[in-house]
Amino acid sequence: MDSADRFSEIARSFQASEIRELMKLLGRPGLITFAGGMPDEEHFPHPEIISIIESLTPAQRAAAYQYGPTPGYPPLLEALSSYLLEKGIRCGSDNLIVTTGAQQALHLVARILLDPQDVVIVEDPSFIGAMNAFLSFRALLVGVPILSDGPDLERLEKAVKLHSSRLKFVYVIPNFQNPSGITYSLEKRRLLLEMAEKHDFLILEDDPYCELFFEGEETVYRSLKSMDDHERVIYLGTFSKTLAPGFRIGYAVASKTIKEKMELAKQSVDACSPSFSQVVAAEYLKRGLCAHYVASMRRVYHDKCRTMLDVLERELPSTVSFTRPKGGFFIWLTLPTGADARTVFQECVEHGVAFVTGAGFCIEAKGEERIRLAFSNASLMDIKKGTALLCSVLRKYYPPR
Amino acid sequence: MDSADRFSEIARSFQASEIRELMKLLGRPGLITFAGGMPDEEHFPHPEIISIIESLTPAQRAAAYQYGPTPGYPPLLEALSSYLLEKGIRCGSDNLIVTTGAQQALHLVARILLDPQDVVIVEDPSFIGAMNAFLSFRALLVGVPILSDGPDLERLEKAVKLHSSRLKFVYVIPNFQNPSGITYSLEKRRLLLEMAEKHDFLILEDDPYCELFFEGEETVYRSLKSMDDHERVIYLGTFSKTLAPGFRIGYAVASKTIKEKMELAKQSVDACSPSFSQVVAAEYLKRGLCAHYVASMRRVYHDKCRTMLDVLERELPSTVSFTRPKGGFFIWLTLPTGADARTVFQECVEHGVAFVTGAGFCIEAKGEERIRLAFSNASLMDIKKGTALLCSVLRKYYPPR
Repeated sequence: MDSADRFSEIARSFQASEIRELMKLLGRPGLITFAGGMPDEEHFPHPEIISIIESLTPAQRAAAYQYGPTPGYPPLLEALSSYLLEKGIRCGSDNLIVTTGAQQALHLVARILLDPQDVVIVEDPSFIGAMNAFLSFRALLVGVPILSDGPDLERLEKAVKLHSSRLKFVYVIPNFQNPSGITYSLEKRRLLLEMAEKHDFLILEDDPYCELFFEGEETVYRSLKSMDDHERVIYLGTFSKTLAPGFRIGYAVASKTIKEKMELAKQSVDACSPSFSQVVAAEYLKRGLCAHYVASMRRVYHDKCRTMLDVLERELPSTVSFTRPKGGFFIWLTLPTGADARTVFQECVEHGVAFVTGAGFCIEAKGEERIRLAFSNASLMDIKKGTALLCSVLRKYYPPR
Repeated sequence: MDSADRFSEIARSFQASEIRELMKLLGRPGLITFAGGMPDEEHFPHPEIISIIESLTPAQRAAAYQYGPTPGYPPLLEALSSYLLEKGIRCGSDNLIVTTGAQQALHLVARILLDPQDVVIVEDPSFIGAMNAFLSFRALLVGVPILSDGPDLERLEKAVKLHSSRLKFVYVIPNFQNPSGITYSLEKRRLLLEMAEKHDFLILEDDPYCELFFEGEETVYRSLKSMDDHERVIYLGTFSKTLAPGFRIGYAVASKTIKEKMELAKQSVDACSPSFSQVVAAEYLKRGLCAHYVASMRRVYHDKCRTMLDVLERELPSTVSFTRPKGGFFIWLTLPTGADARTVFQECVEHGVAFVTGAGFCIEAKGEERIRLAFSNASLMDIKKGTALLCSVLRKYYPPR
């Protein structure tokens, strides 16, 4: 029997994305890939995780294997509160909910806030997983360009005024943005918060990469949430970059009202996030292993980024520009006007290197002229080789004038 | 700032359930609880799990810690296909999707099929987590009474005809139903499938307890899906009863069209289910540990059920009737007409034993006259003591006439 005519209105709009389809082609052996925004899988803290699992107390074991409370395993909520306090974010269990990856937090926020035709303002370009979560509730996305130090605030204010009647929130990734690698200046963080207060909107702050800065002090990368005196900000964090994505542990910090509604929504979405992962994550934080791990991973990612930038600086034609991230996983390339990154993609894959073309990330920005490179999960050797390959293809298509 | 006026229309309807609120009171030390439908936490297969984790190959480790494909970890899909084939269910990766607990499968099915005002026919009483998932898409629930051998098929056919224009599916738990403990006869399974074909509706079959039968052959408890020649059935399974709920691994078997739509919905819901859990579950199936474990757990649950039934048979007043389950976790009590289980609940909690009152499970059935007892996670001693306590309170309120 054919079920297609039984689908809900929303489900009929779900389509396979071009990127996801492309990603399926990337299993080819020997292909160097800068495509997925995945952490380095050579360095997961396996010995620490094994040691935690082997030393679980009977009570921890029971909690790890059993159903848990919807808002999260209480010792994890406690450990997270302390961890967040060090980052200037004050929250107790009234404000904190554990989610099945930060992706679920995006889904829950969208679910409790968005009706069809509601407006979400996003950075242009922005993170596909977030935009898809908003679109899956039939929201309208309005893009605001990001400059080298954060969003174009004039354009943002215009968009806020224009859409004030249906605007639900502004979605931002202030640190080492996905896909652009751009980081907000402290000044822009303050101005954005002031604007939220002035025009009465919520900010959804997604901060998966905050630990992974390459230079300067942590305070430069402080969250909007840590400066938020009026509960304007819903803050999303994750263990995907500081422990392992395979555990699927994210979290949200929000006002009590919003946290409670997210919890009610989560009850029927998956009842609770993986208890096993939560018990491990709680111990990981409590034993101070997280701080140690991220310190070492900063160096790993910095080396990878530096290696990729070196090749780009040396071999990229002058017709192509690129961002110089201060942390995170991504470098964003801008090809000349009229370029088509998909052609470059196809030729690159034939030569043995893959990345993601820009179209999926962009609203008004010209995505077909953009390329996202993730340096996070390739070896230094592959980064050298793959980036050189990409540069040679780009030199062929867009020779320096 | 107050966020309440920003909530989506659907979110405004989310309310804390009475049961969930009651459950929060159950943390009291020393309280014997038959409330939560939770597996026995004295018997989780901890040594087997530890042994699997310690012997993961480097490739398995990388998969366990990394993001995984949205439809599931390929070796788990393979192992599940073999496992399901033994139960007469044929499926390949086109028909199978791993979910974050079966609760997520309920959510995804609801999301892709239900528009507001669409009708779902459910057993009356039925599983609260499923009904909440359907209600969270503003579906209308229509209840059909279950008799001792399955649904009242005459009433079911009437409901199907009456709601044919908006009926999306019929939701059933044919084995050891939650909350009633009732099991469908083979004949009723066949008739239900025929009815689905005749009246062109889908069946959502939830089968979390199928392994946990106490008597007879497995074939008596065969799934509707294993008899489904026309892709009428969406089948839901879980590792929560055969491994551990804390891993949050469920799955759905459906037509290719439905499975693909669920996968698209899942992308923005949580991207992928916990890889770590999936890698462990795949090994657990492949090593044949599941069959061994469920065989031993059948005895454990059978003993617990028998112990509870013994006390009920001996001490319950004749004014109260109860079901005698052939498997699973639950016994369902029917108090006399006009009874109020909440009063009994309060007195019982004061005396040190808790359960769940029936109202949340029921549509038209009189929930206030019903009690669900879960014998699954209490010790034999607590079952004896707690059930005797409950019986004494019931004898006081509803003495034999």
